[in-house]
Amino acid sequence: MPDRAIGIFDSGVGGLTVLRELRRQMPHEELVYLGDTARVPYGTKSPQTVGRYAREAARFLVGQRVKLLVVACNTASAVAVDDLAAIHRLPVVGVIQPGARRALEVTRSGRIGVIGTEGTIRSRAYERALHRGNPDIEVCAAPCPLFVPLAEEGWAEHPIARLAAAEYLEPLLRQGIDTLVLGCTHYPLLKRTLQEVAGPTVALIDSAEETAKTVAILLAAQGLERRGLPSGPPRYFVTDVAERFERVGGAFLGAPLADVTTVTLD
Amino acid sequence: MPDRAIGIFDSGVGGLTVLRELRRQMPHEELVYLGDTARVPYGTKSPQTVGRYAREAARFLVGQRVKLLVVACNTASAVAVDDLAAIHRLPVVGVIQPGARRALEVTRSGRIGVIGTEGTIRSRAYERALHRGNPDIEVCAAPCPLFVPLAEEGWAEHPIARLAAAEYLEPLLRQGIDTLVLGCTHYPLLKRTLQEVAGPTVALIDSAEETAKTVAILLAAQGLERRGLPSGPPRYFVTDVAERFERVGGAFLGAPLADVTTVTLD
Repeated sequence: MPDRAIGIFDSGVGGLTVLRELRRQMPHEELVYLGDTARVPYGTKSPQTVGRYAREAARFLVGQRVKLLVVACNTASAVAVDDLAAIHRLPVVGVIQPGARRALEVTRSGRIGVIGTEGTIRSRAYERALHRGNPDIEVCAAPCPLFVPLAEEGWAEHPIARLAAAEYLEPLLRQGIDTLVLGCTHYPLLKRTLQEVAGPTVALIDSAEETAKTVAILLAAQGLERRGLPSGPPRYFVTDVAERFERVGGAFLGAPLADVTTVTLD
Repeated sequence: MPDRAIGIFDSGVGGLTVLRELRRQMPHEELVYLGDTARVPYGTKSPQTVGRYAREAARFLVGQRVKLLVVACNTASAVAVDDLAAIHRLPVVGVIQPGARRALEVTRSGRIGVIGTEGTIRSRAYERALHRGNPDIEVCAAPCPLFVPLAEEGWAEHPIARLAAAEYLEPLLRQGIDTLVLGCTHYPLLKRTLQEVAGPTVALIDSAEETAKTVAILLAAQGLERRGLPSGPPRYFVTDVAERFERVGGAFLGAPLADVTTVTLD
């Protein structure tokens, strides 16, 4: 069992920021990644539809004999983590709990901002996770639909990104947040722009780091850590042809992407 | 046969700009619209995947007993119109031929700009259509991935839209285009911004008007026009839940949307 891979899925390239952190923190683990690029994005779709897609993605990865499942997509984490854990006899780690936990550690003012896709924000999943940890926290949430296309366009530090960030963050900053959860796996690419707009007193929380930490803790606690030889390169699967995933994904991974296989889920 | 409806499909809400024109030009025709909202957008996906989705959408509409099929999506028109016409014994009208024909009528300089999704621009379908009409035309094409989210965000006339338009159009304007084809059904919402950036000497071509004209010509030529009573309201089908389609679609239709039914294609 410890030699099995960790399975990771996302609607597309965003989850590669999580895979990157897993690799950095756990260089011995084998990784299998699935990007549902034929149906990307999940962020504008209903909980019903995202739930169905997440079940199909999880079923595929379980078929690859993984030991743990990472839902590396905030929208899917918001609606499907409990569901998937109930279906499969595997630990399932989403990106929302880890990000919320970290934000609670960091905040001093008790006012936490959350940004994400329409689907993530409407689900109020961060709000629930934050209030479970501390019911007195004030949560200011805002959907930022333009950030994903800006990141994929390579315009993360373009004046347009700064203008969009100023527009989206204005109500959160006005409410005096001191902590901002990047509630979408694309947003770490916009970190520099967001920090500039939010100012140095606001701490940015990247779920990828926290999620990888959670995975490490779970594997250690259950005796599931892989030891011995360093792992091979991650295996990548997508549901559309690989070309765009390879091209756009490199920026998210911070390294060139290759050997991507196309599969069908539906 | 003349009493049958016209079937229209798009990946989401964009095709409503075409439906709106069909209704304006042909108030007697019954219309059935399908938005593939569970898999939207098509513009970032491969020709193979878009072709499969278009075949599934067309099969659904043919099952609704339509007399003519409108592919109200540039990306799907670029890859699937011939294919669908061969499969079904029905006239199939895409949005690319009509837009290209109109651009050829309008240009004086012979330099035509085309903007659209990644998929549409990579397909070079407009270039082929324009060169079939006149091989001497110079075509300057640019993908504008941010325009769809800007239109759906309701930011069509926001400073961010102007900045994005200036960035995308700069190389086209530098090459001296006098005509600009709006090669995506979302772009008519950005008309004011695009005209401002392009200046008064550049004519904007909206495929919706031209496509409706083509449909009218085809129906008349084949004796398929519906006569007598005015038509009922359009019937709407989507593949995800209706809520977001109804909310965002109103701006594209220019009227409130209701009575939307969810169906499954895959």
